[in-house]
Amino acid sequence: MFSIRQRLKSQSYLLAVGLFVILTLCLFSIAKASDPLPSWNNGVVKTKILQFVSDITNKASKDYVLPEQRIAVFDNDGTLWVEQPISTQHVFIFDQIKKLVPNHPEWKTTQPFKALLEGDMETVGKFGTKGFLKMIIGTHSGMTATEFANEVSQWISKAKHPRFNRLYTKLVYQPQLELLAYLRANGFKTYIISGSGMEFMRPWTEKIYGIPPEQVVGSSVAVEFKMIDGKPAIIRLPKVNFINNNAGKPVGIYQHIGRRPILAFGNSDADIQMVQYTKAGNGKSLGLFLHHNDAKREYAYDRKGHIGTLDKALDIASENDWIIVDMKHDWKHILPN
Amino acid sequence: MFSIRQRLKSQSYLLAVGLFVILTLCLFSIAKASDPLPSWNNGVVKTKILQFVSDITNKASKDYVLPEQRIAVFDNDGTLWVEQPISTQHVFIFDQIKKLVPNHPEWKTTQPFKALLEGDMETVGKFGTKGFLKMIIGTHSGMTATEFANEVSQWISKAKHPRFNRLYTKLVYQPQLELLAYLRANGFKTYIISGSGMEFMRPWTEKIYGIPPEQVVGSSVAVEFKMIDGKPAIIRLPKVNFINNNAGKPVGIYQHIGRRPILAFGNSDADIQMVQYTKAGNGKSLGLFLHHNDAKREYAYDRKGHIGTLDKALDIASENDWIIVDMKHDWKHILPN
Repeated sequence: MFSIRQRLKSQSYLLAVGLFVILTLCLFSIAKASDPLPSWNNGVVKTKILQFVSDITNKASKDYVLPEQRIAVFDNDGTLWVEQPISTQHVFIFDQIKKLVPNHPEWKTTQPFKALLEGDMETVGKFGTKGFLKMIIGTHSGMTATEFANEVSQWISKAKHPRFNRLYTKLVYQPQLELLAYLRANGFKTYIISGSGMEFMRPWTEKIYGIPPEQVVGSSVAVEFKMIDGKPAIIRLPKVNFINNNAGKPVGIYQHIGRRPILAFGNSDADIQMVQYTKAGNGKSLGLFLHHNDAKREYAYDRKGHIGTLDKALDIASENDWIIVDMKHDWKHILPN
Repeated sequence: MFSIRQRLKSQSYLLAVGLFVILTLCLFSIAKASDPLPSWNNGVVKTKILQFVSDITNKASKDYVLPEQRIAVFDNDGTLWVEQPISTQHVFIFDQIKKLVPNHPEWKTTQPFKALLEGDMETVGKFGTKGFLKMIIGTHSGMTATEFANEVSQWISKAKHPRFNRLYTKLVYQPQLELLAYLRANGFKTYIISGSGMEFMRPWTEKIYGIPPEQVVGSSVAVEFKMIDGKPAIIRLPKVNFINNNAGKPVGIYQHIGRRPILAFGNSDADIQMVQYTKAGNGKSLGLFLHHNDAKREYAYDRKGHIGTLDKALDIASENDWIIVDMKHDWKHILPN
């Protein structure tokens, strides 16, 4: 048995330990709160983002936004991960054609599959969008939803980027991972609104971005529900269902979310309409474009080029109160360790 | 200054108060936990639901399901609220035609609008699905998304059911409100998968069911994004985009959620495919059909009738391990107070 003095001592000790734990936790959260975006350099852009989140989460502010209305939408290719020299889905398509050609002998004599199999990318390019759609259909349909998801998961677990020699899933932008986490910590639902295939992205977005499949909106092929040998299945059909790009992006947002976002982040002219739609809401909103101008650490491209063209958006950004994020100056780190 | 004994006393007092508060909270939660579904009568169905949720949330169980995979899908008309004598969206369409006819003088001479305006429902019926689609297009397109949402919100705030003389939003089923809340308290995301118009439901589902617009999947008209007088807008077009019924339901689930649900609740043969798809997953799952057999408190209908026909599902329920919820016996209360 403890004496009164001993009991007091042990109670005080427990109190002291408790206070220490609480204090430590407080210090940690202060340290964390002091910079939720450590891979962003201090400057106008970072300040604007922090101020925006502070305003819309402040109940006393005229700009306060209810948590359920805090929707943030992000383009994927070139906004959340590297899209050069060609988009990751392009690489997947080309790899799949090489992998699946034993089951598709007709590809050896059909363009643009033939040229691709012969490594003649110039000829592939000449078939343009129409040829590209043929390759999408060839590799993205004619199987069940589950089979396609397995193909994607297998491929993405191994495929590496030619320049960085990293898995594509390690070519996400560290500053954006921090921004996504920061927004979610402030009550936002974060969405991907991409021109890429919705079902190409869904198998891995939760793991690499913390964005679940139901918050990924993209282009899609048509599907049908069918009983196959008494088992229900979703079959992917050789037909484009929806192109979620340019003016398709606000349409995808309307159909999938049904609310207007208050933050939109893109990197090319294909994101203009998404940002316009977001900025046209009644309350405060943020529209951002990532400007790739860092050839050393990543890539430098804007007005010209075959992918991620940022041209018109650069010209009309300031008159529309859109923020241009300068990769070279605004981002301290680009890729995660 | 307190003596040691006094300090001990006051600390013990604080401890006692603390313990009392904790105990009270525990008792409250036990009382609550003892019956999360008070409007469901005890019996096989209720037990199966409780057991299912207990199993899939128990980390030690072989049936454990990760929280992010806990997707529950509900049909709306006849499953979450009253759908007789005609579906609520039908009433909305008929009311809108009467309201909007001054702007559409052509309706006075065009069928089936003409018959409807003359109160000749028999003739309206003769035009079947095609006539109904004409009326949907007439009342659901040709305006911006915002304008349509406002029309719906205005209507639903006033329209009353002819038999119950209640707002339609007060004709939701109390047992289902409890089930939705119980599932969400156990980590589920709850979705509506309805044949009705997606944008007809989205303006009010959050308020009456706690289901946000982004978790409402339904039929839709095509839309386009357009700048009107320099302002971005979503325009609703006179063209059906998707019919989210029968085999369309699993397609809607695949496109909007991208995961297979583990619980599906319907009330008619139009929900069969949704339930089949749900039950075909690898883990434990629940498929339920509400059987309306309570003419006194609500309505009695199943194999015959123009709406909510429950026929084939009744025949094949038991061989498929689907649960038939017997409204008369399984539900203690039907409508909320």
